[in-house]
Amino acid sequence: MKYYEDIEIGDTMEFGEYHVTEAEIVDFAESYDPQPFHIDKEAATESAFGELVASGWHTASMCMRLLADGPIDDRASMGARGVDELRWKRPVKPGDTLSIRTEVIDKRVSESDPKRGYVDSRLEGLNQHGEVVISWIGLGMIERRNSDENAE
Amino acid sequence: MKYYEDIEIGDTMEFGEYHVTEAEIVDFAESYDPQPFHIDKEAATESAFGELVASGWHTASMCMRLLADGPIDDRASMGARGVDELRWKRPVKPGDTLSIRTEVIDKRVSESDPKRGYVDSRLEGLNQHGEVVISWIGLGMIERRNSDENAE
Repeated sequence: MKYYEDIEIGDTMEFGEYHVTEAEIVDFAESYDPQPFHIDKEAATESAFGELVASGWHTASMCMRLLADGPIDDRASMGARGVDELRWKRPVKPGDTLSIRTEVIDKRVSESDPKRGYVDSRLEGLNQHGEVVISWIGLGMIERRNSDENAE
Repeated sequence: MKYYEDIEIGDTMEFGEYHVTEAEIVDFAESYDPQPFHIDKEAATESAFGELVASGWHTASMCMRLLADGPIDDRASMGARGVDELRWKRPVKPGDTLSIRTEVIDKRVSESDPKRGYVDSRLEGLNQHGEVVISWIGLGMIERRNSDENAE
């Protein structure tokens, strides 16, 4: 298990492979983002995108799946505080394959709870051409090693 | 159709009703965020949450659905640039009913493209107790009225 102390600013990782299908784009969007360019291949040709593209929230969710399955799964995570600077940079289309790249950009101990460390990481989602399609800064919380002692 | 000129800073709306079920929480999380406290009712009792809770990305997606079905559907939207300050404030649980509240907090014409207006809105997702469970600032793009003339 990796604790707050095991994580350094500048640590990077790149991993994952998520195959995006037309069926999944439509399925997600019918539930959560039923705009024509996400659910209707024909209507999408007349949209600003010119073709069917994934909902931005779907792209974020696919990157979350890569994160959850990835090597940071062994961190003593205490959940996420939130996300800053979420940006949709390029459309995600049927047939794309996504991967993610993460970099730790800040860490500090919580002032209110010394058992808790704050770790902020930049995430970039890439397509098979190496183009960034989405990015955000994840605001994570990670347990400190021997946090019971630290709390005393 | 509402254009950039029809939207004022300070405009607020409150709408929607989204019923959150255990089956949907588990279904979303099995696809996109398979952490024990999102997919396993038993395991969740031993987590920091103490019970099954929705993935934060699921909560965002449910609010997106309310947005897409809501009265802002008649805006001449040109898509979203991104989201700032996404925060998960309280857990969302089976049986909750979500609604959303939006407020326009900034607007300005694009410097690079005079056909395009930028409109930033704060969104809050509320549960049936009126508690804010999620919030973010949506960075929207909206067409200007008679944008063909404006571009000349």
